[in-house]
Amino acid sequence: MTRKLVYRFEPGKADGRAQWRELLGGKGANLAEMANMGIPVPPGFTITTEVCVDYHNTGALPEGLPTEVRQGMAWLEERTGRQFGSVDNPLLVSVRSGARSSMPGMMDTVLDLGLNDETVQGLARKSGSERFAYDAYRRLLAMFGDVVLGIEHDAFEPALTAARNEVARQKGLTVPKAPEALQRIVPDSSLGAEQLKKVVEAYHAVIRRHTGKPFPADPYEQLDAAIMAVFKSWDNPRAKFYRRMNKIPDNWGTAVNVQTMVFGNLGDTSATGVAFTRDPSTGERRFFGEWLPNAQGEDVVAGVRTPRPLAKRPDSEGQSLQEVMPERYAELVDIQARLEQHFCDMQDLEFTIEDGTLYLLQTRNGKRTARASVRIAVEMVQEGLLHPDEAIGRVDASRLRELLFPAVDPKAGAAAVAGGIAASPGAVCGIAVFSAEEAEAEAEEGRDVILVRLETSPEDLHGMKAAKGILTARGGATSHAAVVARGMGRPCVAGCSALEVDHKTRTASVHGATGSVVAKFSHGDEITIDGSTGKVYVGRVATIPAALGQEMETLLKWTERVAHMEVRANADTPEQAKQARQFGATGIGLCRTEHMFFDDERIAAVREMILARDAEARAVALAKLLPFQTGDFEGIFRAMEGLPVTIRLLDPPLHEFLPKEEAQIEDLAATMGVSAGDVRQKISELHEFNPMLGHRGVRLGVTFPEIPEMQVRAIFHAACTVAKEGLDVKPEIMVPLTAFVGELTSMKQIIDRVAEEVFAARGVKVAYEVGSMIEIPRAALLADRLAEHAEFFSFGTNDLTQTTIGLSRDDSGSFLPAYVEAGLLPEDPFVSLDQDGVGELVRIASEKARKTRPDISLGVCGEHGGDPRSIDFCEQLGLRYVSCSPFRVPIARVAAAQAAMRHGTPRWRTRRCNTYR
Amino acid sequence: MTRKLVYRFEPGKADGRAQWRELLGGKGANLAEMANMGIPVPPGFTITTEVCVDYHNTGALPEGLPTEVRQGMAWLEERTGRQFGSVDNPLLVSVRSGARSSMPGMMDTVLDLGLNDETVQGLARKSGSERFAYDAYRRLLAMFGDVVLGIEHDAFEPALTAARNEVARQKGLTVPKAPEALQRIVPDSSLGAEQLKKVVEAYHAVIRRHTGKPFPADPYEQLDAAIMAVFKSWDNPRAKFYRRMNKIPDNWGTAVNVQTMVFGNLGDTSATGVAFTRDPSTGERRFFGEWLPNAQGEDVVAGVRTPRPLAKRPDSEGQSLQEVMPERYAELVDIQARLEQHFCDMQDLEFTIEDGTLYLLQTRNGKRTARASVRIAVEMVQEGLLHPDEAIGRVDASRLRELLFPAVDPKAGAAAVAGGIAASPGAVCGIAVFSAEEAEAEAEEGRDVILVRLETSPEDLHGMKAAKGILTARGGATSHAAVVARGMGRPCVAGCSALEVDHKTRTASVHGATGSVVAKFSHGDEITIDGSTGKVYVGRVATIPAALGQEMETLLKWTERVAHMEVRANADTPEQAKQARQFGATGIGLCRTEHMFFDDERIAAVREMILARDAEARAVALAKLLPFQTGDFEGIFRAMEGLPVTIRLLDPPLHEFLPKEEAQIEDLAATMGVSAGDVRQKISELHEFNPMLGHRGVRLGVTFPEIPEMQVRAIFHAACTVAKEGLDVKPEIMVPLTAFVGELTSMKQIIDRVAEEVFAARGVKVAYEVGSMIEIPRAALLADRLAEHAEFFSFGTNDLTQTTIGLSRDDSGSFLPAYVEAGLLPEDPFVSLDQDGVGELVRIASEKARKTRPDISLGVCGEHGGDPRSIDFCEQLGLRYVSCSPFRVPIARVAAAQAAMRHGTPRWRTRRCNTYR
Repeated sequence: MTRKLVYRFEPGKADGRAQWRELLGGKGANLAEMANMGIPVPPGFTITTEVCVDYHNTGALPEGLPTEVRQGMAWLEERTGRQFGSVDNPLLVSVRSGARSSMPGMMDTVLDLGLNDETVQGLARKSGSERFAYDAYRRLLAMFGDVVLGIEHDAFEPALTAARNEVARQKGLTVPKAPEALQRIVPDSSLGAEQLKKVVEAYHAVIRRHTGKPFPADPYEQLDAAIMAVFKSWDNPRAKFYRRMNKIPDNWGTAVNVQTMVFGNLGDTSATGVAFTRDPSTGERRFFGEWLPNAQGEDVVAGVRTPRPLAKRPDSEGQSLQEVMPERYAELVDIQARLEQHFCDMQDLEFTIEDGTLYLLQTRNGKRTARASVRIAVEMVQEGLLHPDEAIGRVDASRLRELLFPAVDPKAGAAAVAGGIAASPGAVCGIAVFSAEEAEAEAEEGRDVILVRLETSPEDLHGMKAAKGILTARGGATSHAAVVARGMGRPCVAGCSALEVDHKTRTASVHGATGSVVAKFSHGDEITIDGSTGKVYVGRVATIPAALGQEMETLLKWTERVAHMEVRANADTPEQAKQARQFGATGIGLCRTEHMFFDDERIAAVREMILARDAEARAVALAKLLPFQTGDFEGIFRAMEGLPVTIRLLDPPLHEFLPKEEAQIEDLAATMGVSAGDVRQKISELHEFNPMLGHRGVRLGVTFPEIPEMQVRAIFHAACTVAKEGLDVKPEIMVPLTAFVGELTSMKQIIDRVAEEVFAARGVKVAYEVGSMIEIPRAALLADRLAEHAEFFSFGTNDLTQTTIGLSRDDSGSFLPAYVEAGLLPEDPFVSLDQDGVGELVRIASEKARKTRPDISLGVCGEHGGDPRSIDFCEQLGLRYVSCSPFRVPIARVAAAQAAMRHGTPRWRTRRCNTYR
Repeated sequence: MTRKLVYRFEPGKADGRAQWRELLGGKGANLAEMANMGIPVPPGFTITTEVCVDYHNTGALPEGLPTEVRQGMAWLEERTGRQFGSVDNPLLVSVRSGARSSMPGMMDTVLDLGLNDETVQGLARKSGSERFAYDAYRRLLAMFGDVVLGIEHDAFEPALTAARNEVARQKGLTVPKAPEALQRIVPDSSLGAEQLKKVVEAYHAVIRRHTGKPFPADPYEQLDAAIMAVFKSWDNPRAKFYRRMNKIPDNWGTAVNVQTMVFGNLGDTSATGVAFTRDPSTGERRFFGEWLPNAQGEDVVAGVRTPRPLAKRPDSEGQSLQEVMPERYAELVDIQARLEQHFCDMQDLEFTIEDGTLYLLQTRNGKRTARASVRIAVEMVQEGLLHPDEAIGRVDASRLRELLFPAVDPKAGAAAVAGGIAASPGAVCGIAVFSAEEAEAEAEEGRDVILVRLETSPEDLHGMKAAKGILTARGGATSHAAVVARGMGRPCVAGCSALEVDHKTRTASVHGATGSVVAKFSHGDEITIDGSTGKVYVGRVATIPAALGQEMETLLKWTERVAHMEVRANADTPEQAKQARQFGATGIGLCRTEHMFFDDERIAAVREMILARDAEARAVALAKLLPFQTGDFEGIFRAMEGLPVTIRLLDPPLHEFLPKEEAQIEDLAATMGVSAGDVRQKISELHEFNPMLGHRGVRLGVTFPEIPEMQVRAIFHAACTVAKEGLDVKPEIMVPLTAFVGELTSMKQIIDRVAEEVFAARGVKVAYEVGSMIEIPRAALLADRLAEHAEFFSFGTNDLTQTTIGLSRDDSGSFLPAYVEAGLLPEDPFVSLDQDGVGELVRIASEKARKTRPDISLGVCGEHGGDPRSIDFCEQLGLRYVSCSPFRVPIARVAAAQAAMRHGTPRWRTRRCNTYR
């Protein structure tokens, strides 16, 4: 049996169906489906995507295609009673692309095929309007010239401008220079048949001049060339670029739809419009759309004429389709309801009314805001249209952050002066301050402040806390500023490289592309940043407040029945722990103990410890820290009420805790009773060329075992206290930066010994686990041996990305964007896990770990724990949990549920819905 | 059949043989072998290592052991005609440990077993000397008390001191306080029978006091306890430590040798001595050793009496064994010759002459200097004793560096004031200078200088070139100073952390363990450093010059027939290339192009390139560099005469080329016609937190493609020029720091395009290859995909170690030594490849690469390429070559040959030799 290349459709009957979008493309499949439903679509046929794939593989169209196309056209002639190329009663067709996945505007379309100098006369006669016929003809010539013959669109402009000038002169108008202004005062609709005939003549000349040949009068020559052009357009640069951006495989190919032309511009009984079955920005269930009388589809979008509402509205009385063509409106309302019921999703429709007859030209799942997507999904469940599991799948998890944070109001129309990395989401406005001290001082006065720094360091922590938002000129998505800001839930734009920050004069200048200063702001000036988009604005810009919303809460509830993976949070304080629980975290996957060290009262003891000359002096300083840490852990354990809390032992290099500025160094020296020179000497001793690869993590624990000992003592004392209060406590103690088995065993010895000591002293026992971060390639490669001593592993994918790719998160800003742009890298690997490289190590480590300890608990606690694509990868590896910033927990919960369904057998596959995303 | 636990030996007959050292230990196996050869050894038996292993596994000795020991003793009584425990004719035995691998002094020995208050009388009668008998008895008591009963050796001192005092008083000598001085004026030999009887009595008391029990008079009780004590000593702390240091498995166990005592201290017809069959320090073939008349073995070693030469010598006429006991000497010469012939290696013998009868107590392969090992191995081949392949196996490759560099003369007896990392071998003396400029200035005056720096940077390069040696306070074995020094062949001690360097006052202080200053030197003071040992001396210390030597050349020649792997060199200049060829390198495995950038004339153009505002200005600066690079490559291609040259494209981050000091910054600004502020701004822009993981390697090539383009152009122009001269050229262009496939393909595009351009312009074509470094874990994990575009891979194990272990080579000094000491790490992973972690990635990458491209050329160009253990690992993976500093090439050649034999089937296994190392 030969392969069928052409699939026909007409109301009530079609060769294809919605499910065959791989073969027919999205547009073609849905046209077929509508036809099957008996919805009035202009009859036509779809040439399959396989033809396109063939063409791109072999360079030629399949042999049988011309015959099947001609048979299709013969069938169309029969169904419409018109003839292709007939002077008396010409059939006109459109040729449109239609890929499996929508690629709006990326590929080409040719309308009005079948017109030539003779048939245009027939069209004029049949339609009763010469103007209409020549208008269609000149559109064909321009589109064919551009799409099929490759003539620059601009080449056709002069003739049109000349025609407009003529009309303007005839009407006695002043002729403006700018073509846009001219078009505004002389719209196309004001061009008469005579002008349009001249335009047509001029267009013929343009085509002859550019191609050396006349425009092909033969309708089949037109049709074949147009079909070929659409297939070719699959590989035009903008389509390729779009596919790369949207991860659409190059070998899918596009289908081609050949369809009878219908016209919305045949007079007052004709119209055209677009509609959504629900409100795409709020999700509200109401039929919603716009239309224009006596117009072509492109006129609604072009914005030359103001479209009118479909439904009756008080502010535009008499304008609506409901009022002007009540019967067609009723028909349309009926159709849209059937379509939504049929496709089980909000539909985006295009329709044309030709001389009182309604035609549907397209239906597809409508684009919508994140908030609308949640509301629609949840309400469709309530309406019985969807299964709850299916509703979860209808939401784009990566866009949910829009719900969780305030955003710059797009209606404000403000222009950003600079862009950086969207490091911590949310929009916020405040006065610019340039130091942590100023941030605190101004905040105490009750002002909202944005802390602006070249980069932040742990010393800025109190200022970051006081600020409403953070803006830095350096650093990436996982820089100090970004990580801390996310943990605190502060909006942050990082690595805004156009920004030149001068801490001395307390001003910041924004450099444009040419290097000149395009904006400037100083201490006290209001600025607005949007950490969801990375944009920076000078002045106050209106924002839309955040709200999870009732529908989102409902959706999140549903995820619990579906997801395999738990979602934990990275939280360092009782406040963050509470926040995390509110968002539904099932535990703390990463509690960074060092963040507890920066409070004013504590940092002095930390520095005393660092400057200690020997273990004894170090022990004295550590003893001062013990009660603070104990208190912190008590608060966290209470907040988590028996949920697991994974506590990481001290991780950063000690020099991060020492002051950097001269005045602070002298202060410290005075406090400690040593010379400033001594302090400077220590700072210089601790300096590291590559601190990321330096003396940190468990390496500190090995060289200064007093430090983990104090921390572990604090953990167990806190656990005992809370246990005595009658609460459950589940401490999981995690060793950071492990690379050697001996590191883990020596820490485990300390932990087990201190546990026994504390339990004996407190007269109570608490179950605990000991595990390790896997954030060094060596640890991943030796996971089997490490697993002999660890009850859990947590993949620290931030550091694992740095070491596996050899890429410093703080320094990558100078080349990583160029990499992503050049397509060397699909995405910033600090945002979405590098599955081929870093992911391969995670896979190796998971396999090896399970070989030693089949029930080992495996999780991810890097920033990737909040990224849907990375979460999907974790699901595939069968990890137990992901852990992310509290504010990303809802996103992660949805993503985890989606991943579980994607890689399991979702219950709703059995339902009747006709399209799947 | 029950397992045999006891193996007997007597001259002419033994149950065991030399090959059974696993079972009998080295000592026991060789005693058996000597016995089989008919060499006079005192009869005895060996208890197997299996007994020891049993004991350590089960905590008990095997059931049959007491019986077999008693049968062995009965046999000994029969062979000697004496009885164990007999008063009339007592048999005395020694109990000695003897492990498979020699562990000198680590385990215990008990002599003279069988003596008690009665048998001592019989010994006195039989020997005719009461003094002799009681001397033996008191030795037994002290040794038994110490080894078997665990009484501190010091407990036995007072009695001996009292006896010595008595003798001194009797002789009217002034009694010195210090026991050593007393022993010198009253040697043990001057203690009479009466004194010794008192000592014996006192020793009995010590034993009773410490154990609450008397010394066991029952000889079998003595013997069983001594055997048990030796087995127990396998697990004493010093033995465990020794095993860990020497990588001897804990489960090997030791054998125990029970042997008839013979005495060299029975009067003038008795003697004892040690001998080597060849000179252990030069390797010269001459019988060589020392002896003492009327002495016990330990006296020769103890140094109380000055031993005499064995052979007649003019400077000690009448002293030699040859003159005093010519017949015994002749017998010994005959035996040593037989032993060497038999064991096919230089032997280290112990002998005793008891009342005119010669006994051999031990033979083993003698320890020797590296130089001696080479000479002996080569001469033994010439003598027909060894096969050349076997000779290669006889050399310890890791010790060969002793031959290649001058060393501090041990005879000078100088004491080091500080120790650092032995970063680049060789000893050198010169005046201390504290800056590169001073180094140049002083060197121009003709002085030998040692450049002393806190650390070095590329700016110090001209100073390092001018200096004879380099000493730094910071940095490890692969720090800048170390890497550059090795490349230049300059001795270097790095990371000498006791050193406090003050560049301003041009002085350095050495801090002792307590922190006090123990030494100090200033600009112009003479110091000596030994980069082979890491030692630093104040003042001029005599050195021994380096010389490869004729024998080494011969040995190296032989390696060529055996080795599978090629040995290439890391060489950056024509001079280094020539040096590398002299040492037998078969190509350049790593030519670091950036080292060519630091010459005074060039650095200006490099900096101009970095400061360039756009690609155009960058191109202008690069054009200036082109002729320099072309010239460099021509020189290298000519020097290598057709051998492959692997050239790595620019690797280090650009900031390494910018000046650091204010004056230089201003100079640069003036030269470039920009403000110093601009330069500082650029330096600050290029600053990186973790330069190791920053904008370097191929990342520079991706962002600034003009740079690799210039370098590649220079390579092909040079290649064409040299090819036109009629020479062969084999450029292999290597992309550094590759992590993504797109990086490699984009560089390959540039390389292939420029090659075509240059070949067309020059009218000649040159074959070339394109490959990649594998120095990032991601690259190793994706080696299969990278191999689609690479003809070779070179493992950059320095950087791969840094990223895989997450360990900065420059910062690891603060904790790595502590790790090695604590046994967390077997060795510095920058010195010897971390086979479990980094090695695993090399293995994965090799396998994956070969899957894509079975004939891909794989090599290692990290410093590990010169480390024998790492080379052995590379052989196991089947790599094609290793590449190392020119000065390490000979070591690598020997190591490669040894590795090939170890993992292949060496041809000499068929020969008759009786021991293998």
